[in-house]
Amino acid sequence: MMSFSELDRKFMQTALDLAWQGRFSTSPNPRVGCVIARGEQIVGEGFHVQTGLAHAEVNALKQAGSLALDATAYVTLEPCSHTGKTGPCAQALIEAGIKRVVVAMPDPNPQVSGKGIKMLEQAGVNIESGLFTLQARELNLGFLSRQERNKPYIRLKIAASLDSKTALSNGQSQWITSNAARNDVQTLRAESCAVLTGINTVIADDPLLNVRRFTTLRQPVRIILDSQLRITPAFHVIQDTNSPTLIVTTIRDKAKHAVFAPYPHVSVVTMPPNQHGQIELSELWPILVQRNIGLILAETGATLNSALLASQAVDEIIYYQAPKILGSSARNAIELPENQEALNESEWQSVDLRLLGNDCRWTIRHEQSASWLKGSLL
Amino acid sequence: MMSFSELDRKFMQTALDLAWQGRFSTSPNPRVGCVIARGEQIVGEGFHVQTGLAHAEVNALKQAGSLALDATAYVTLEPCSHTGKTGPCAQALIEAGIKRVVVAMPDPNPQVSGKGIKMLEQAGVNIESGLFTLQARELNLGFLSRQERNKPYIRLKIAASLDSKTALSNGQSQWITSNAARNDVQTLRAESCAVLTGINTVIADDPLLNVRRFTTLRQPVRIILDSQLRITPAFHVIQDTNSPTLIVTTIRDKAKHAVFAPYPHVSVVTMPPNQHGQIELSELWPILVQRNIGLILAETGATLNSALLASQAVDEIIYYQAPKILGSSARNAIELPENQEALNESEWQSVDLRLLGNDCRWTIRHEQSASWLKGSLL
Repeated sequence: MMSFSELDRKFMQTALDLAWQGRFSTSPNPRVGCVIARGEQIVGEGFHVQTGLAHAEVNALKQAGSLALDATAYVTLEPCSHTGKTGPCAQALIEAGIKRVVVAMPDPNPQVSGKGIKMLEQAGVNIESGLFTLQARELNLGFLSRQERNKPYIRLKIAASLDSKTALSNGQSQWITSNAARNDVQTLRAESCAVLTGINTVIADDPLLNVRRFTTLRQPVRIILDSQLRITPAFHVIQDTNSPTLIVTTIRDKAKHAVFAPYPHVSVVTMPPNQHGQIELSELWPILVQRNIGLILAETGATLNSALLASQAVDEIIYYQAPKILGSSARNAIELPENQEALNESEWQSVDLRLLGNDCRWTIRHEQSASWLKGSLL
Repeated sequence: MMSFSELDRKFMQTALDLAWQGRFSTSPNPRVGCVIARGEQIVGEGFHVQTGLAHAEVNALKQAGSLALDATAYVTLEPCSHTGKTGPCAQALIEAGIKRVVVAMPDPNPQVSGKGIKMLEQAGVNIESGLFTLQARELNLGFLSRQERNKPYIRLKIAASLDSKTALSNGQSQWITSNAARNDVQTLRAESCAVLTGINTVIADDPLLNVRRFTTLRQPVRIILDSQLRITPAFHVIQDTNSPTLIVTTIRDKAKHAVFAPYPHVSVVTMPPNQHGQIELSELWPILVQRNIGLILAETGATLNSALLASQAVDEIIYYQAPKILGSSARNAIELPENQEALNESEWQSVDLRLLGNDCRWTIRHEQSASWLKGSLL
């Protein structure tokens, strides 16, 4: 176990805060922040904004200029050692004369993990790793899940009443939660690589599934699970060209795919049906990972959200609750078979709890997901 | 509108904090705190501990001694002007030479309201009222409800899963919420004049309904709603003599009452049955007020808690939620007819939200109760 000073902790926290600035835009790249300091004086700060643009270390070095000589760099992720869309950051740190590098965690990709650290070591840079690792992992849930689990990190959003209902028995469901809660959902969307829903929700509500209450550099991909390819170009997710749309179906009929050809923002992915004629969720996740989708916000109706829960795919539930009682015959938010085990022990851990206007938002994480996230610390 | 200084606010806040010290013991008396200060220096602090013991003002004056001369007294409730179990506090303040009195609110009892203030005024004391009135009313929800509404303030405790279930379909329900949540319920009980439940809960669980995880000066009354007088002396609420028990029934048969004669801590109240042969809840509340019951914690099953909700008797819901999903066929925490209005506007307001271990506790207040509480401020 390395021991770090108070100053180290302060500057790494600043680097983490910087990294969060990129939370709406770096996808599919990780969020990364960098601080360059000489003693108690910060001389450079940087974060990664968007794929194709400079990495955090390069931005920080630009600001530091010649003050980087003999300075310490704090980086939330191991600097890269390869030339991608930009040059290797480890090399840039070496060339600027950085004397010491503190990183929060190594690169999760086993192909490159440790190579940046090695490059720095070989150049005589003093390198230390492991400061605020868990915080650095929270920063990049989607990116890490994609790299380490070959599965996106899935957040399931549910908006319900106190009695866990999402709609009246006739299906009417507008405005269960408040404006503050709906604004918050926009933030969750913006943070995600993709928003996932089912065809039934598309047909019932014709949602846009985009970020529209504030400006962002990119829109999340809209993933529509549509086993029987019932979607038509009339829906908003096809008509609105500002967000990519990914239709997942089991129907291979090329003529049926052809109706989406005039919409270059729309892709159709075909999967073999499972024994129930449905999309097999566990086989969908690697396909989405191949498309660089790391963090997913599922905004689904009771049937699909219960299927996601039953398949153990959900990493987090973000449960918005309004202080309303809709009544026993209203529609359930969750439709699952009775689970006797749940009485004895909880599969879920509280992560966050807050009031949004008059509503409450409770974030709970599956214990397996929590173990995975903490795993590399053990 | 009076204008108060920062020092006034600071000392009244201290008086409120002092008053809260009595939250487990003053019932049926109000919780009252008092600070006596000369300029920036506090010279006396006091609060009311228990009925029959000294009032807050007297305790603070005792500490201040001769330093009370020309000092300011901050009291969370108008000082009394009558001789009850103790002498009139207004007179004690005058005799000690207090120069200025700041009170948070007048006495809610219309028979005596303003009389203490008048007594002080007539003695030449500078008296100001209205500092932190709402906080002072929050302090004494039960006492004020009894005085102003002829009805106890009713808190309904519900402990449920994320999907708003309280038990498996077979009735099994132990340990839905965590130890931290169960400790918290003990605190709620201790704060209450009485704990209310139904005979079905007594028969199913045979609960003690007392405070046992920490020491208190008094136990809340146990109120058992038992229309058909099905309770027998075998149950804990009869066998345990440390808390008073009040059985409410529609059965007048003296022989059936006689079985409780050996238990002096047990009282039986008889009410005429309503058209369904049940206890008429709206007629129960004035009876409980007559017995000095102001703050009630209802710990009831789905049937009775839904009856309480349907009758609009519930002022607050204290909703404990465990991060568990019991499944659709498990038993509902709330059984009410569908309410279309709830979609459009909420009858409830968020009051407090916190994590207790892995569980969440959400306190919501009925908007009519919130209006009543704020009413005297308008």
